[in-house]
Amino acid sequence: MDWLDQVKWDSAGLVPVIAQEQSSGDVLMFAWMDREALRQTVETKRAVYFSRSRNRLWTKGEASGHHQQVHEIRMDCDNDVLLMKVTQHGHDPSIACHTGRHSCFYQRQDGNRWTDVEPVLKDPGAIYT
Amino acid sequence: MDWLDQVKWDSAGLVPVIAQEQSSGDVLMFAWMDREALRQTVETKRAVYFSRSRNRLWTKGEASGHHQQVHEIRMDCDNDVLLMKVTQHGHDPSIACHTGRHSCFYQRQDGNRWTDVEPVLKDPGAIYT
Repeated sequence: MDWLDQVKWDSAGLVPVIAQEQSSGDVLMFAWMDREALRQTVETKRAVYFSRSRNRLWTKGEASGHHQQVHEIRMDCDNDVLLMKVTQHGHDPSIACHTGRHSCFYQRQDGNRWTDVEPVLKDPGAIYT
Repeated sequence: MDWLDQVKWDSAGLVPVIAQEQSSGDVLMFAWMDREALRQTVETKRAVYFSRSRNRLWTKGEASGHHQQVHEIRMDCDNDVLLMKVTQHGHDPSIACHTGRHSCFYQRQDGNRWTDVEPVLKDPGAIYT
């Protein structure tokens, strides 16, 4: 069986993907891939996702320059979630989030509210020019 | 606005959740929560998920004893994914996967195949007695 057929694609033909920074272990972002995105990611060792809002393939960093080098891809026990170890390029310290933050997971549950706990490292207006 | 209302629940009333081991940084598993699961998780500091296959709340470890202590919950920039820092209890070394492995992400993409790269730490037959 083709390795791509072993992935349990959802009804929309997608699989959720967690991107984890190899050097720090930080979970950077969560996105989706279709079959072609995963194929291209493995072939190029650069993260290619499927944008549900734009309904097309999206090479991470194509607008921001913040691309992701992919070192390893894991699949979970149900074959329906992927985990990638990546190096986040394009800025030091690394920026994965479109808000200009290191990680997309910057809001912390604090009692009865969510608190922003990570700094904006670069103004999004300067990232997406 | 209630903090629970700030989460963008999907059409099924669920949100994806990534569980990351606090001590190691390892991503252990991926699951789902509904509003009540998240409320109970915050209240008890133990991971409560929503099982889509059983269509009910599921306290992690209720059958296996492998429960998760929750230290921190983060939400992403789109308010539609959660990340939890947990301590995985019940076995040493820790087991999060129903297959008896440390992490659910034990299959590695290797050229044209997926290879199991993590050992079974405890026979599932002995976990679920």
